Amino acid sequence: MSSNISNEAEEIVSQANDQAQKGHSSKSGKKSTPKKPSKKTEAHIEGASQLGIEVRKEVDFSLWYKQVLRRSEMLEYYEEVSGCYIIRPLAYNIWQEIQNFFDAAIKELGVENTYFPMFVSQRQLEREKDHVEGFAPEVAWVTKAGSNNMESPIAIRPTSETVMYPYFAKWIRTHRDLPLKLNQWCNVVRWEFKNPQPFIRTREFLWQEGHTAHFTKEEADTEVYQILELYRQVYEDMLAFPVIKGIKSEKEKFAGGLYTTTLEGFIPTTGRGVQAATSHCLGQNFSKMFDIVIEDPNAPAGPDGKDAKKMYVWQNSWGISTRAIVIVIPCGITSKTTEDEKKRVEDKINHVVKELKSAEIKAKSDLRENYSPGYKFNHWELKGVPIRLEIGPRDLSKEQTLMIRRDNGVKEPIPLADLTSRISDTLKCIQKDMFDRAKKVYDDHVKLVLNWDDFVPNLDNKNFVLTPWCEEEKCEDSIKEKSTRHTTEQEAEDEKAPSMGAKSLCIPLEQPNDPPIIPGETKCVSCGALAKRYALFGRSY
Amino acid sequence: MSSNISNEAEEIVSQANDQAQKGHSSKSGKKSTPKKPSKKTEAHIEGASQLGIEVRKEVDFSLWYKQVLRRSEMLEYYEEVSGCYIIRPLAYNIWQEIQNFFDAAIKELGVENTYFPMFVSQRQLEREKDHVEGFAPEVAWVTKAGSNNMESPIAIRPTSETVMYPYFAKWIRTHRDLPLKLNQWCNVVRWEFKNPQPFIRTREFLWQEGHTAHFTKEEADTEVYQILELYRQVYEDMLAFPVIKGIKSEKEKFAGGLYTTTLEGFIPTTGRGVQAATSHCLGQNFSKMFDIVIEDPNAPAGPDGKDAKKMYVWQNSWGISTRAIVIVIPCGITSKTTEDEKKRVEDKINHVVKELKSAEIKAKSDLRENYSPGYKFNHWELKGVPIRLEIGPRDLSKEQTLMIRRDNGVKEPIPLADLTSRISDTLKCIQKDMFDRAKKVYDDHVKLVLNWDDFVPNLDNKNFVLTPWCEEEKCEDSIKEKSTRHTTEQEAEDEKAPSMGAKSLCIPLEQPNDPPIIPGETKCVSCGALAKRYALFGRSY
Repeated sequence: MSSNISNEAEEIVSQANDQAQKGHSSKSGKKSTPKKPSKKTEAHIEGASQLGIEVRKEVDFSLWYKQVLRRSEMLEYYEEVSGCYIIRPLAYNIWQEIQNFFDAAIKELGVENTYFPMFVSQRQLEREKDHVEGFAPEVAWVTKAGSNNMESPIAIRPTSETVMYPYFAKWIRTHRDLPLKLNQWCNVVRWEFKNPQPFIRTREFLWQEGHTAHFTKEEADTEVYQILELYRQVYEDMLAFPVIKGIKSEKEKFAGGLYTTTLEGFIPTTGRGVQAATSHCLGQNFSKMFDIVIEDPNAPAGPDGKDAKKMYVWQNSWGISTRAIVIVIPCGITSKTTEDEKKRVEDKINHVVKELKSAEIKAKSDLRENYSPGYKFNHWELKGVPIRLEIGPRDLSKEQTLMIRRDNGVKEPIPLADLTSRISDTLKCIQKDMFDRAKKVYDDHVKLVLNWDDFVPNLDNKNFVLTPWCEEEKCEDSIKEKSTRHTTEQEAEDEKAPSMGAKSLCIPLEQPNDPPIIPGETKCVSCGALAKRYALFGRSY
Repeated sequence: MSSNISNEAEEIVSQANDQAQKGHSSKSGKKSTPKKPSKKTEAHIEGASQLGIEVRKEVDFSLWYKQVLRRSEMLEYYEEVSGCYIIRPLAYNIWQEIQNFFDAAIKELGVENTYFPMFVSQRQLEREKDHVEGFAPEVAWVTKAGSNNMESPIAIRPTSETVMYPYFAKWIRTHRDLPLKLNQWCNVVRWEFKNPQPFIRTREFLWQEGHTAHFTKEEADTEVYQILELYRQVYEDMLAFPVIKGIKSEKEKFAGGLYTTTLEGFIPTTGRGVQAATSHCLGQNFSKMFDIVIEDPNAPAGPDGKDAKKMYVWQNSWGISTRAIVIVIPCGITSKTTEDEKKRVEDKINHVVKELKSAEIKAKSDLRENYSPGYKFNHWELKGVPIRLEIGPRDLSKEQTLMIRRDNGVKEPIPLADLTSRISDTLKCIQKDMFDRAKKVYDDHVKLVLNWDDFVPNLDNKNFVLTPWCEEEKCEDSIKEKSTRHTTEQEAEDEKAPSMGAKSLCIPLEQPNDPPIIPGETKCVSCGALAKRYALFGRSY
C-alpha cells in the first residue's frame, strides 16, 4: 500500500497538461491537432500562458508541476507545517469521483466500510517487528494532551495493520465468520524527512485501505486480481492514464506479504515510473503474528477430547490514494449589446446549464462581470475543464452554441436542440482520445531489450525496458548498480537528469511473445543465467 | 459545532430500540402494537433477549446502551487507547448515508469540498485567544517524529477555524470572490479527560465542518437557516428522530460567534436533551481577527489616491457528526426437506435479493448453514433491520414470502409478484410510524410551565420545560442553580438520577401562542422580570 493521493493527482495533472499542450502545439505542426485553431483561439492561448503557466514542463518539470497544481487551484501550500498541503475543491472532486466509483465496486464484492481509530499504542505498533521497522523512522508521536504529558507516547497510524488485526483475531472464530472484508477511507501520517513534494511525498495523505481475511488461498488470490482490475479501471477508464499490470519482484514486494501485484504508470517528460496502486496477498504471515485462527471445519474437536485442528486465515490488503465539467461562457457582449440582449444570453446560459445538469453532466456558467471572455477561457482551461461552450447574441438567433474541446482545440457550432447528446458523445470521445494518445506514448517508451548494451542507453532516453530476467535479488541489485550514473544525490533526484539506478517495476501479467522466453534456453539480460520471464525495469519515483 | 457522530448514533440506537421495545411490549398491552404476535414470535423475542440485550434500558440505561452498541456490532471498544472506539460497518453505513444525502444537498447550495491538513502549529492555533481557550485543555500535541524531537510541538485539529481562515484571507480579495463556501469531511481530536462514553464523548470523532464567507449579513443569515433545515431533514426524515429548531441563548452560543441555531433532541428514558447539530452565524468577528477583507465595491479607490473602503466578510460555520435493509432468511427447512427443495428455496431467495437490489432496496440473504432460523432472526433484529422476509418450501409453492416488520412485529404474507412495491411502501410506512411515535413521545414531554413551582417537578419527571423567559444570562445561571439537586458529581452524571441543573436548550423558532407572550405584561418564570420569548429548558448531555 505505497500509493497515495499524490501519485494520482500528479498523473492527472501531467496527463491533463500533456494533452492540453499537445492540443495547443498546433504551431509546431504535430499531427494530433485535427484543426488549425483560428487566430482568436491563438490569442487566448497566449493570454493563458501569461496568466497561467510560465514554464514548459520540458524545461523545468518540477517548477511546471508546482505551477500547475497551484494556479489551477488544485492545491495550496500550507505554510504552517512543512510537508502538508491543502487539497482544494478541484482536486478533492477527483478524489470524490474515485471514491464513488471504487466504493460502489468493492461493496459489490461484499466489502464493508469501517473506521478504526488513528491512534496506536507503542506496544501495539511494535508487535510486529519487521513491519514496524519500515515505518518507525516516520512515525509521528503524540506525547502531550493539553498541558499534561501522557503516560506513554501514542503513535498516529502510518497504516492500519497493527490497529486492525488484533480485532480480526477477536471477530474471526470459525470458518463461518469468513470471508471478513473491511475497508476504510482515512488519513495516514508518515513524517518523511526527505524533501516534501506536493502529492508525491506529503506527511499526511488520504487513502483507502482494504483488509480482508479468507478461508482459502484461492479465494484470497482471486480477490487480489479483482481489486487490481478495479484500480486499473480507476486509472485507465476514469482518468485516461495508462498503466501496466504486473507482479512485484521479491525485493520490491510488501514486507511481510506473500506477493504484491501492482499497476505501473509512466511520466513521459521525465521517463520515470510511478507506482499507481498495489494489491497484496499477505498469505498467512500476518494471521500467524496476530493469531487469527479458526478451527478446521474438516478436522473438528473430537468427542474424545481431541483438539480441533487450527487453521490460519489467508489475508490480503490493498490501497489507492488521492475530472468532467462543461463551462458555459457568455461571448460577443460589446458596448453595443443592449441590456435586453445581454439578459437573454444569460437566461439561455442558465437554461443550458440546467439542461446539462439534468442529463447528469456537470456543468457550470461563468457570468462574472468585469472579467473578459479571454480571462475566463484561461481560468477554466487551467482547471482542466474538457469542454467550453460559448454563447453570444448571434448564437442566440441561430439557436446554437460554439463548443471548444480542451484536448485538441477543435471548435464546432452545435445546435441547442442536440445539446445533451452531442456533449455526452464528445465527452466520451475526449476520454477515449486522451487515453489512446497517452497509451501510445507509454507503449512507444517500453523498449524490448535483449542485450545488456541496449539497457542503459534506453533508460537514458527516458524509456522503460522490458527484458528477459532471472528474477534473482542479487541480479536486481547488480542491475541497479550498473544503471546508476554516479552523480550527487541531488542530481539523482533531479528530473532533468535522472541517473538513479533502475529497479524492477513489475513482471507484467501480459508477457511478450516475440521472441518468447524459451525455458532452459533464454538468458537473463544482465547475469546470463537462465531467464524466467520478461520483467519491466525503469527509473521510478 | 459541538455535535458529533456520537450523539447521532446514540439517538439512532435509542430510537431503534425504543421502537423495537414498544413493538415487542404487546404483553403490557400498549396500544401501539397493531397485532398480537403469535407464540412463535414471542419465542423469538425471548431468544433475542438471551442472545442479545440482557438489561432493560429503564433499569440501567448506561449498560443497556453499551450492550446495544457492541452486540449489534455497531461499535467495538478499542483497548489500546482509552476514549477511542472502532466504528463497525453497521454504524459506518449510517454515517455514509448521512454523508451521501448532506453532501449532495450542500453541493446544490454551491458548497465545495476541500481537505485541510490536520496539523496546526502552536502559533497558528493560539492566534485567536478566546477561541483557543475553550479547546486548549483538550489539544493533543505531536512532539516526536521517529526518534527525533520536533523543534516545536504541533497540534492535531480540535476544529479547523485557525487552520482555514488564514487561507480565506489569502483567497478572498474582492467581492467577486464571494461567496466562498467550503466543507470538509474529516476526523478531529479532543483529548477529553472526563469519563469517555462511546459516541457521546470520544477523543477522536468524524464530522463535517462547513465554513463559508459572504458579502452581506442577509446572505449569511439565509444560509444559516438553509443548513439548519438540512440537518433537520437528516434527523427527522432520514433517522425518524424528532428535533426542535431554535436559537441558543447568549450564554450557550458558539464562543466568538454572532448567534447559534440548533436542533435539540430528547432521550425519553433519561429525560435528558441532546444537541443534535448547530449552524452558527459568526458575524464579522473572525473576519476581523483573521483580516478577511475586501474592497467595498461601492466605495472603490479613487483616482485621487484615496484608499478604497475595506469591508470585513460575513462568516458562518456549521457541523454535524456520525439504516434500511431487508434480510431474507430460509425457513421451514427440516430433516425431511430434500436437497432439491432446499436448493430451490435458496435460488428463490437469491432471486428475491437481486430483484430488491435492482429496485435500490438494500437487501441481503442469510444462507449460513448450522445456524437456526431463530438465531438468524435475533442476529438481524439486534442490528435493527426493519424488514425480515422468510421463505420456505411451502411459500415457494404459493409464490409468496412472509414479511415481518421489526417496529411492531406485524407478520403478513405477500405475493412475490408484488414484492418490490410492497417492500418499498412498507419501508416508507415504518419510517413514518417510527417518527410519529417518537414525535408524540417528545411532544408529550415538553411541558408548558407558567409558574416556577412547576419547573423543577417537571424536570424531575424527565420532561423539558417550555417557559416564558427574560433571556438574561444571570437569570439563566440562577435557573441552573435552583434546578440542581446538590448531590455528588457522580450522581449528577448518573442517568438514573439526573439532578444536574437545567440549561436553556434553545429559544424555539416555533413559539407557543396559548397563552402568547404579551410584551410588557408576561413575566419571566424565574426572576419575574418581563419575558421576551418562550425558551426550552432541560437537563442535557
